[in-house]
Amino acid sequence: MFLEMEAALEEEIREECGVFGIFAEDPGLEVAYLTFLGLLGLQHRGQESAGIAVTDGTRVACHKNLGLVRSAFRPEDLKGLTGFAAVGHVRYSTTGTTSLANAQPLVARFSRGTIALAHNGNLVNADALLVDLEMAGSVFQSTSDTEVILNLLAHFSREPFPEALRRAAERLVGSYSLVMMTRDTLYGLRDPHGNRPLCLGRLEGGYVLASESSALSSIGAKLIRDVAPGELITVDREGLHSEILLPPARRAICAMEFIYFARPDSVIEGRSVHEVRKELGRELARVHPVEADLVVPVPDSGYSMAVGFAAEAGLPLDIGLIANRYVGRTFIQPQQELRKQGVTIKLSPIEAVLRGKRVVIIDDSIVRGTTTSILIRLLRDAGAREVHMCVSSPPYTNPCYYGIDVPAKRELIASSHTVEEIRRFINADTLHYLPMESLPRAIGLPLDHLCLGCFNGEYPTEIPRENVGKNRLEKGV
Amino acid sequence: MFLEMEAALEEEIREECGVFGIFAEDPGLEVAYLTFLGLLGLQHRGQESAGIAVTDGTRVACHKNLGLVRSAFRPEDLKGLTGFAAVGHVRYSTTGTTSLANAQPLVARFSRGTIALAHNGNLVNADALLVDLEMAGSVFQSTSDTEVILNLLAHFSREPFPEALRRAAERLVGSYSLVMMTRDTLYGLRDPHGNRPLCLGRLEGGYVLASESSALSSIGAKLIRDVAPGELITVDREGLHSEILLPPARRAICAMEFIYFARPDSVIEGRSVHEVRKELGRELARVHPVEADLVVPVPDSGYSMAVGFAAEAGLPLDIGLIANRYVGRTFIQPQQELRKQGVTIKLSPIEAVLRGKRVVIIDDSIVRGTTTSILIRLLRDAGAREVHMCVSSPPYTNPCYYGIDVPAKRELIASSHTVEEIRRFINADTLHYLPMESLPRAIGLPLDHLCLGCFNGEYPTEIPRENVGKNRLEKGV
Amino acid sequence: MFLEMEAALEEEIREECGVFGIFAEDPGLEVAYLTFLGLLGLQHRGQESAGIAVTDGTRVACHKNLGLVRSAFRPEDLKGLTGFAAVGHVRYSTTGTTSLANAQPLVARFSRGTIALAHNGNLVNADALLVDLEMAGSVFQSTSDTEVILNLLAHFSREPFPEALRRAAERLVGSYSLVMMTRDTLYGLRDPHGNRPLCLGRLEGGYVLASESSALSSIGAKLIRDVAPGELITVDREGLHSEILLPPARRAICAMEFIYFARPDSVIEGRSVHEVRKELGRELARVHPVEADLVVPVPDSGYSMAVGFAAEAGLPLDIGLIANRYVGRTFIQPQQELRKQGVTIKLSPIEAVLRGKRVVIIDDSIVRGTTTSILIRLLRDAGAREVHMCVSSPPYTNPCYYGIDVPAKRELIASSHTVEEIRRFINADTLHYLPMESLPRAIGLPLDHLCLGCFNGEYPTEIPRENVGKNRLEKGV
Amino acid sequence: MFLEMEAALEEEIREECGVFGIFAEDPGLEVAYLTFLGLLGLQHRGQESAGIAVTDGTRVACHKNLGLVRSAFRPEDLKGLTGFAAVGHVRYSTTGTTSLANAQPLVARFSRGTIALAHNGNLVNADALLVDLEMAGSVFQSTSDTEVILNLLAHFSREPFPEALRRAAERLVGSYSLVMMTRDTLYGLRDPHGNRPLCLGRLEGGYVLASESSALSSIGAKLIRDVAPGELITVDREGLHSEILLPPARRAICAMEFIYFARPDSVIEGRSVHEVRKELGRELARVHPVEADLVVPVPDSGYSMAVGFAAEAGLPLDIGLIANRYVGRTFIQPQQELRKQGVTIKLSPIEAVLRGKRVVIIDDSIVRGTTTSILIRLLRDAGAREVHMCVSSPPYTNPCYYGIDVPAKRELIASSHTVEEIRRFINADTLHYLPMESLPRAIGLPLDHLCLGCFNGEYPTEIPRENVGKNRLEKGV
Repeated sequence: MFLEMEAALEEEIREECGVFGIFAEDPGLEVAYLTFLGLLGLQHRGQESAGIAVTDGTRVACHKNLGLVRSAFRPEDLKGLTGFAAVGHVRYSTTGTTSLANAQPLVARFSRGTIALAHNGNLVNADALLVDLEMAGSVFQSTSDTEVILNLLAHFSREPFPEALRRAAERLVGSYSLVMMTRDTLYGLRDPHGNRPLCLGRLEGGYVLASESSALSSIGAKLIRDVAPGELITVDREGLHSEILLPPARRAICAMEFIYFARPDSVIEGRSVHEVRKELGRELARVHPVEADLVVPVPDSGYSMAVGFAAEAGLPLDIGLIANRYVGRTFIQPQQELRKQGVTIKLSPIEAVLRGKRVVIIDDSIVRGTTTSILIRLLRDAGAREVHMCVSSPPYTNPCYYGIDVPAKRELIASSHTVEEIRRFINADTLHYLPMESLPRAIGLPLDHLCLGCFNGEYPTEIPRENVGKNRLEKGV
Repeated sequence: MFLEMEAALEEEIREECGVFGIFAEDPGLEVAYLTFLGLLGLQHRGQESAGIAVTDGTRVACHKNLGLVRSAFRPEDLKGLTGFAAVGHVRYSTTGTTSLANAQPLVARFSRGTIALAHNGNLVNADALLVDLEMAGSVFQSTSDTEVILNLLAHFSREPFPEALRRAAERLVGSYSLVMMTRDTLYGLRDPHGNRPLCLGRLEGGYVLASESSALSSIGAKLIRDVAPGELITVDREGLHSEILLPPARRAICAMEFIYFARPDSVIEGRSVHEVRKELGRELARVHPVEADLVVPVPDSGYSMAVGFAAEAGLPLDIGLIANRYVGRTFIQPQQELRKQGVTIKLSPIEAVLRGKRVVIIDDSIVRGTTTSILIRLLRDAGAREVHMCVSSPPYTNPCYYGIDVPAKRELIASSHTVEEIRRFINADTLHYLPMESLPRAIGLPLDHLCLGCFNGEYPTEIPRENVGKNRLEKGV
Repeated sequence: MFLEMEAALEEEIREECGVFGIFAEDPGLEVAYLTFLGLLGLQHRGQESAGIAVTDGTRVACHKNLGLVRSAFRPEDLKGLTGFAAVGHVRYSTTGTTSLANAQPLVARFSRGTIALAHNGNLVNADALLVDLEMAGSVFQSTSDTEVILNLLAHFSREPFPEALRRAAERLVGSYSLVMMTRDTLYGLRDPHGNRPLCLGRLEGGYVLASESSALSSIGAKLIRDVAPGELITVDREGLHSEILLPPARRAICAMEFIYFARPDSVIEGRSVHEVRKELGRELARVHPVEADLVVPVPDSGYSMAVGFAAEAGLPLDIGLIANRYVGRTFIQPQQELRKQGVTIKLSPIEAVLRGKRVVIIDDSIVRGTTTSILIRLLRDAGAREVHMCVSSPPYTNPCYYGIDVPAKRELIASSHTVEEIRRFINADTLHYLPMESLPRAIGLPLDHLCLGCFNGEYPTEIPRENVGKNRLEKGV
Repeated sequence: MFLEMEAALEEEIREECGVFGIFAEDPGLEVAYLTFLGLLGLQHRGQESAGIAVTDGTRVACHKNLGLVRSAFRPEDLKGLTGFAAVGHVRYSTTGTTSLANAQPLVARFSRGTIALAHNGNLVNADALLVDLEMAGSVFQSTSDTEVILNLLAHFSREPFPEALRRAAERLVGSYSLVMMTRDTLYGLRDPHGNRPLCLGRLEGGYVLASESSALSSIGAKLIRDVAPGELITVDREGLHSEILLPPARRAICAMEFIYFARPDSVIEGRSVHEVRKELGRELARVHPVEADLVVPVPDSGYSMAVGFAAEAGLPLDIGLIANRYVGRTFIQPQQELRKQGVTIKLSPIEAVLRGKRVVIIDDSIVRGTTTSILIRLLRDAGAREVHMCVSSPPYTNPCYYGIDVPAKRELIASSHTVEEIRRFINADTLHYLPMESLPRAIGLPLDHLCLGCFNGEYPTEIPRENVGKNRLEKGV
């Protein structure tokens, strides 16, 4: 029971969703249960609601609930979901009972039958599509852009399914990794930029689609490959079928998936996420050598980078910060006075490690700067002689329009401050960011195959003006 | 703590919904709280989910939950619902978490803005409408026919609102008492047959719409009148406006509202429900005089009738059956062996009243016949010398297609058995039903102004063939 | 769904407990399940916690929970309680999680083994006993006087069991109907005054003890007789054994059990409670003939009396008040302004019955007077021309020290006001109480066999001075 | 969100309790809230119930609940607990509602007033004491030996408090770190062997007692020193007072606190737990040099040791195992077939790290051996060429009688198997334990100041024969 790890700082940027799908050729596979396990392996992508829809060929049944996967499903809920194919989803959403209305998969009927839909990503033209669809008679009961996709699909439903999907997808601007299911078929579609990850796996007796390969490991499935940008995967009784549904566009996979969001044991675009992070740490040590006594990772997200940094820098790695994983998110916050006394409940420094030392701290990013400044104060109070803050990504300066929850631009400290100003604000002895140029080397993809919008404001799609602020859908019904 | 009344027998026929709406001219009125109180006065019409939507002119907020009104809303839920108009709903639905998806009011956006919709009744052409709407691109996320109304409304939304509503309503076949709300206006619409009740009330500083006047009493409002069949009531900042939206059709108010469903203190079509029931009892005593020692009502539904019957027959009324109101519906049922011993947990006989007596039992209806036979056995075990079963309605022989949950026709004992066969089955000394001809006199409306479908199979609308069985919508997504 | 009965007024005086015990000779009897059913038949005596303890000869298992019997036990809880004898309890207690500490049965170990104890009643010398026991080294973990009985029993445990019980019981002053169980034996003991009821029943294959015979009906058991004051009933493998454990004292059964607390289908001291109440109504009509048009009971407690009153007075009985049973106790109360408008959510008048009529209202008691005055206002608002309030008991003037929860004496309106003052306060045309002298005739017991403390301040035991106010135990740990 | 750490393997040995106490001189301190924070810092010692008792000088209030600290207390619960001193407790206990009965602090009245008691440890003579106390008239309502301490204290309560406590403590055999509170005084007592930790801290305006200094950090308090074996700390309005209540005995602090239980940032006996663990790792590398490519810790408990081992061995440290912290303990377990496929939901290997490598795995102990064997299979499946298992403690061969939950001796693989047999069972290439002799050096205490009972069967106290198996108290009431 040593390192009681938890995201040590308030999570300031959050992935919004994870998707999963399975099609069983072998009738012995319990698809709902396997989806449950798969969602456990995607839980880091969304922790506020979970859902599973299952088809037995005649009926699509669905169970959704608020909370973590482990509490959203009781054994009897899983037992009630029988069939040969399933779609699952984990999601962040705003709190409150009504938010169940935004949980996925969405299950709905339209002229072509019943469909279950799970979406990871965000449409930037949802507002325009919504207005068009309303004009054509559509009704919207939630604030999720997934309902826009659903109605668009229904709108084109005079066409047979893959064609309707193509017609609908051509209208979508933004990011989407979709897993869908009709009464007899499982589909996976990735947007033409490949912004969010989506991979294909093989299980004895079935096929699997998932946001990350970590979900494949959860059920003993093997990774086949990533779904290609614009590719539609179809699995039915006839087996697996692939087609390029949408014309190629510039590759733009989210760099932050590698840097922060994905689970370290996942493999994306053929690269181990953990190894990429070690490489980010090595790059950082190469570009910014620091004179220090020891390297301390911020738990948990700094670990992989710290291993790489320490190795490259030839410095010892030690554990100088402990995270209290029992604190949770729905916590009664310490009062202001206690905060002033430097009380942090989520993180505890180990004085014996830090006292008198020149310490390199490794973290993945600085968002607002406040938690980093509290952290550095904690380290100094525990006796650290020097604190060198090393960030394994470029300065975070811009919002994300593709499914990541980020504070408003004005709250992003790097959007309006120089590195030196940030260093003074967080009170570090030195502050080092990884230069943009180091990313391709570490990630193993050319710069123009990455979405780096949050670092440089260049997005793979046009961003409609009304989105530059906040999504109208969010303002709600 | 005397009569622990509860529906003593398993409720075998159940109302499906109650609707409520309020528009406050006086900004001091707390419309959400008043709707909460109003729903308490309609709780007998639906006990499995409750919901309230409120508008403040710019935003429609909604809270829905499973369970009774008193537990579905916490004080903070009500506090969160501020505005000047509200719509409320209580509903029966099948159990399980997902059934929250069927709770009302439905709140949705379409091209004309946001609408909240609460529906009491049932469409018999929902299937056909659904197919048409799906062909036109509509998407359905629940199994409720209220979603059909909503999409139909959206379909006609190029028209301004009352006209769109008229166009939509012209397509609806079946029963519907609707209470609707946009951001600034409250609407009430009753189907052209007036099958389900809907009334209009006045509160100091506001107007109220409700399924029954019992909900007006709950908030200290006065009954103005029933909404007329086909009439649209509109309330906004300009005041109250009435128009006949739909052409007249044959009047067909549900007779069972008078006989069983409505609360005895409600006034429907200008008649006190309690007085109507007393009259039903008097009629029964006139048509079927019984030689007996005493009249015993089945709690709670037989009380009003028993008062009338006893008075007309000149027999003493006594309380010979006590209902245990703590048993509830989600109860662990007694095992078969205990049932054989005549153990009934919901009803207890009072031996001192019954022993050696010739007893007239008054109930509102016999559905399957099994609970009546258990009841009569209970009375005989407690010493009743003779049991004369008097039912204050005609034999119940046919299903209801207008919003009442009834067992399948083959389970209705009177659909396939003579009165004498039923008498033998329930083991009564005599069995008497109220003849159909007595209803108009007791209710005070001509026979052809009543819907008597469940007694004679003659329905005010055509019943599409696919409905003669079970609603396709119920078979679900 | 006619009379939605519920205690129409706030319950102002409340029974505190019900006890139950069963010993099965037939191993096929499921004692936990039968106790569950029995407690349902005692639920009116206590609704805030429920518990069942079971012995299988080697181990005593217990499950207790807050809430109604039906929600306190899930099927799996009952399945976990296997054995041949059981003790059950229902109780009122103050709200909050910690009050589970006061739930019964108490299960404890002492030198003679394990004991489960369920108590109905109240000790008036609990404080003095507590001090003595503390001096002797006892420890108290709750605020219940049942723990005092338990420790007293342990204190005398060098004696064999019935003798230890006798030694302990000799020290107890107050009321107690106890059901106890060791690993192999069931015991029932009633205090020498017989203040609280306790009866003995026979079930095929077993014996039953219960506060009221309504619990026997719940499980198909037959009433043998009441347990006599001071009598100890012992049931074990050898069968049933009776002994007079304590010397005779003046009989003092609580008159309010007949008037209000007990279920009307119970038989106490050989008298049907319902028939006693009808007789109370008849007496009232004889002593106070009223010129009026109709008799209306206050639901539910006035029903039996109203039947007797109406018959004796030759007046028609009608239902003029409907109770909303869905309101519950944990209800969001209407704001003051609404109350001023005469809004009562629990009770609705039927105008058609009342308008223009001279009405006799029958209730069991007047406690504070406020609810009666609201009630009468309600009747007048509904058009009653005259309201004659008839109370089927003498003026309620004094607190109860024997297990009934009553407001403080200064809040009892009759303790400081004349009948005429009360009449004016409640705004009745006339007000009639049943004279004390009528009680023996109606109940069928001589006056000096009844405890009438709440009517005349004469208690069957000495009341220690520190009790004349509030119990020290209640002030808590 | 990198290392989603959680105890990766089923926790096979578990600490049973943590205790906390605070006395505020400054009335501005919110003692309940500070205790809440303190318990968060002790949560790793017990996760199944939590409780806080508070005194305001006249009344002791208490709130206890099942579950983690963060869910056991709502803000309103804390607000209800006002006063100047508080006692808190976290505990493991068996599941089920009734286990709330065993939650602490125990709050009780005895002749000297009210006392709140929180206990960490276990008495080995509880049975004998229980029998004696029962003979003297004591009653026991739970299965916790803390109730034995309470009754013993009451038994001696003719003496003034510290003397009564001394008399009681002289009778106790086993381990106990007690935090107690009367209406005006806070006490801390540690058993004469000092088996469980207990430390004293200073907060601006108050004093604190806690099982570990991690709880002091949680509230910004500074560690003064450990409470000495046999020492009684008293804090009241007069300030802090210390006395040696019990004569000195052989020092016997639990070695497993250093090796596994305590939080790495705690300081016990003046030694940083993290540094001790690093030293254990260094010792292991010195005694058992291994030829390998890399060192991989078992998350989370192996981290500190791995840092020390890697540094001493001159091998790179890498993260080869990821723990899924969302799985939780109340999890639906994978079916047998899935387990056969090598599916582990709690732990995922990183293939890119492991493939083709000779890996040293560092863990704190091997209990049954099954989880270690699953782990090694996982590593081999992920491509590890060699697996060298290094355990930073001696073979675990014996049960603990002092408050640690350990499987039965026959289930401890090292109790009946040689190291070579274990190596074969877990399928490691080599298996190395830390020799007993290395412990003093790493921990910094002489061997005979440690309790090493679980390693060598030599316990600091006599173990009554009836305990050699299972505690009679656990068999229950």
